[in-house]
Amino acid sequence: MPIAASAGVADVLTDLFIVLLAAKLGDELFRRLRQPTLVGEILAGLLVGPAVFGLVEPGEVLEVFAELGVVFLLFWVGLETRLSDLRDVGPTAMSVGILGVAIPFTAGIGLGAALGESTATSLFLGAALVATSVGITSAVLIDLGVLERRASRTILGAAIVDDILALLLVAVAAGVAAEGGVDVGSIAVTAGVALAFVGFIALGGTKLLAAQPALLHTPRFSESPLLPAVIICLGLAAFAAQIGLAAIIGAFLAGMIVAETRDQHPIEEEIAPLYAFFPPFFFAFIGLEVSLAAFGDFDTLLLLAGVTVLAVVTKFVGAYLGARRMGRRDAAFVGVGMVPRGEVGIIVAGIGNATGTIDAELFAIIVAMSVLTTLLVPPLLRRLATEPEPDPSVTT
Amino acid sequence: MPIAASAGVADVLTDLFIVLLAAKLGDELFRRLRQPTLVGEILAGLLVGPAVFGLVEPGEVLEVFAELGVVFLLFWVGLETRLSDLRDVGPTAMSVGILGVAIPFTAGIGLGAALGESTATSLFLGAALVATSVGITSAVLIDLGVLERRASRTILGAAIVDDILALLLVAVAAGVAAEGGVDVGSIAVTAGVALAFVGFIALGGTKLLAAQPALLHTPRFSESPLLPAVIICLGLAAFAAQIGLAAIIGAFLAGMIVAETRDQHPIEEEIAPLYAFFPPFFFAFIGLEVSLAAFGDFDTLLLLAGVTVLAVVTKFVGAYLGARRMGRRDAAFVGVGMVPRGEVGIIVAGIGNATGTIDAELFAIIVAMSVLTTLLVPPLLRRLATEPEPDPSVTT
Repeated sequence: MPIAASAGVADVLTDLFIVLLAAKLGDELFRRLRQPTLVGEILAGLLVGPAVFGLVEPGEVLEVFAELGVVFLLFWVGLETRLSDLRDVGPTAMSVGILGVAIPFTAGIGLGAALGESTATSLFLGAALVATSVGITSAVLIDLGVLERRASRTILGAAIVDDILALLLVAVAAGVAAEGGVDVGSIAVTAGVALAFVGFIALGGTKLLAAQPALLHTPRFSESPLLPAVIICLGLAAFAAQIGLAAIIGAFLAGMIVAETRDQHPIEEEIAPLYAFFPPFFFAFIGLEVSLAAFGDFDTLLLLAGVTVLAVVTKFVGAYLGARRMGRRDAAFVGVGMVPRGEVGIIVAGIGNATGTIDAELFAIIVAMSVLTTLLVPPLLRRLATEPEPDPSVTT
Repeated sequence: MPIAASAGVADVLTDLFIVLLAAKLGDELFRRLRQPTLVGEILAGLLVGPAVFGLVEPGEVLEVFAELGVVFLLFWVGLETRLSDLRDVGPTAMSVGILGVAIPFTAGIGLGAALGESTATSLFLGAALVATSVGITSAVLIDLGVLERRASRTILGAAIVDDILALLLVAVAAGVAAEGGVDVGSIAVTAGVALAFVGFIALGGTKLLAAQPALLHTPRFSESPLLPAVIICLGLAAFAAQIGLAAIIGAFLAGMIVAETRDQHPIEEEIAPLYAFFPPFFFAFIGLEVSLAAFGDFDTLLLLAGVTVLAVVTKFVGAYLGARRMGRRDAAFVGVGMVPRGEVGIIVAGIGNATGTIDAELFAIIVAMSVLTTLLVPPLLRRLATEPEPDPSVTT
């Protein structure tokens, strides 16, 4: 259109419309089939994206909408979480996080070595196997209404530990790729900043808002605490991202500290429309990023199958072992909940691809593995969550 | 940060945070000073943008958020409007739209000729003087609670007429700039498509939803009609933008047809959080686009003053004459309400700049003029709206 007032904006609005419509149609179909709705949204993204019909390309604006989708998702989860909930599950979450990182990472390095890849490539493969997408699991937990269970809290706590460790591993891998060496000092600083941020916000922030719940409706610009809460959410998400953590860790902490005022404000009700609007972009975007072009030959498919099995088994085993003191049923729930790689695996692979460490084939494999692990978990988690209390006669 | 998981997203989140925080602080300050809050938001954008502190650059993502801001603003206005309201003011709105376009356009061409500019540049200058930003006026009307007045309806109707005419003028100007000639056939098609879209949606859409209000809660993916309504809004906004109209015309029509189901659904309440979240980006973005670098010398400032006076006077006179049958007070209200050029003037100037017809100096002048007309209107409109009924002893 030579005369469109601003062709760029027209095309972006069209993309947003197509993605939202497709995601909600996918949701609708899967809801009617009694299947997990987020799987429908991911597959809808896959359909309208480059993998099938090519109506929409995954560009910067859609990436930001997807990021805000998972930010508001984790903000919502934070609203449902109290600091004491996390403290209760702390030791278990810590061991789930550590074992759930150590085992997949070791396996990834081993696989890289077995394939004859360089050290840097093997490190990236390991880091991509580590990444857990707590966004996917959270959405399933919300859907099932089991966010308040001990096992659910453990997953959330472990996801924070997991993300801090993943941050360090990616830093190590990027360091090796860039200079062939690792700057231990700067990585120690990164780790210190990340821990200080999480500790300071979790402890200080909750105390502040518990003592001063009126802070959220002091501003006159808002009749409700919605915008002050959203500003806190965006600010902490941006800060977390700037120090190299996942933005969603900041959003989750923001939700947790805003929740301290929950007796005063119906904040969940107010945030609900933002929570309805943005997350479909997150799920659909995962599908948009899939490319099927790389999977023309049998060897690649075989490698994909191997990587996927390795990703599922090592993460499940690591997390299960970390959570085994909770009993077999809850440990299995935690193990499955940590499996989805979602957008995080894709981001790690993207960094490796950008630095030239991960080639196009391996990139396509990691993306496809991330999506496969993500599609696998919702039905499994649902089955585990709705299963009756442990009983030897029940088979899963 | 070499290790940020995705540095691009981290920076965009930071920009969104800074812009939203700044806009709401500007809102807060102007609210406490009892001044129009959107002026505070525009000035906040100016402060954090390149004009002053340079914390944020106006990039693609912020532009899309700004566009969604005015889209949800006009959707909201549409929700408050019935087709019959527009029909009642139809003839007046038509003459306001036509005269409010013809007089500034002629003046702009005359000014271009007087400055010794080419025909194409003069046409663009005329088109930039024509553009009315109904987003700005709408926000003021909502704030004042006078959206249901006849004069307010007239402004909305005239804005639609205005936008269709502006579309044609920009098409003519771009045609002259590109080939030195105008393709009358293709412009006739453009006009036909625009009129058919508006007529079909306004008449057919309202009839459809008035007859089938349940359509909005048929989908199971949404417990409320929020997402179906948002999808209709995005779809019509995108379609309007694709055929060269302003996206907000589509959003306004979407609001109007969704409003036909309003007896069944508390749709305004549900859309309120989106309406709170996005529009601050729209107002702040106008400020972000201002550059002060061009205004170093006296001649440029003088030209800016001249263009601004011309823009205000010609639009006011044209709209006033068009609305004179409503009486002096309402005609003045309509005249002032049509004055803000806002983002529309900036978009027209941007097209001219991109095609090489508008040079950097003239571009900066048109942007500054658009912002000045926009800052001027809210206080004037407020004074006119709160003025008591006409009485010779009252001075405005």
